[in-house]
Amino acid sequence: MPGQSANLDRTFAALTDPTRRAILARLGRQESASVSDLAQPFAIKLPAVLKHLDVLDAAGLITRSKEGRTVTVRLRPQPMKEAMDWLGFYQRFWSNSLDRLAAHAERREAEAKRKKR
Amino acid sequence: MPGQSANLDRTFAALTDPTRRAILARLGRQESASVSDLAQPFAIKLPAVLKHLDVLDAAGLITRSKEGRTVTVRLRPQPMKEAMDWLGFYQRFWSNSLDRLAAHAERREAEAKRKKR
Repeated sequence: MPGQSANLDRTFAALTDPTRRAILARLGRQESASVSDLAQPFAIKLPAVLKHLDVLDAAGLITRSKEGRTVTVRLRPQPMKEAMDWLGFYQRFWSNSLDRLAAHAERREAEAKRKKR
Repeated sequence: MPGQSANLDRTFAALTDPTRRAILARLGRQESASVSDLAQPFAIKLPAVLKHLDVLDAAGLITRSKEGRTVTVRLRPQPMKEAMDWLGFYQRFWSNSLDRLAAHAERREAEAKRKKR
């Protein structure tokens, strides 16, 4: 699935940056935001924020609509689902290691109790 | 959580490359693999594979152990859990949009049936 692979490339690349993740988190908390609202909490200039929005848009993670002079940004979470599906395959590995850790802890506790007697 | 944020940066950056994702998928299917086994299916040279392994190792996604002249690579899935937890926050958004899509499809179907009568 080469198409899907390129999508994943773009999605993961878009998620590598903490400012872009913070923008997505903000759009997750509120329905939509204007570009100037989004830019406000960051110590970076507006052109830098616009570049981040371009990357998020290219990855399909946001939509932008212009009404008059205001650009409204909204979350488009579908690519995250693909990324999560990809990661989901590995879930059994970390559940297994957590199970092993828990079993190990129980064995040590049982051993400690036995020694105390 | 700046530490966790840097971890996520590294994890997502490691996952942007299809060769690195293929290496992880391979390590997901079999317990462990030698470096030369891992390099074999790719049309890239061994030094390029080694660089990819360095990136995966720096992100904490694999472990490498040397026994004699063989380097054995194993999956270390914990950072993927963090990435999936981060993505999990957005799950409700795509479930919501899927619900909306399903409701929309049902409405259209009901409408089409009504028109047929």
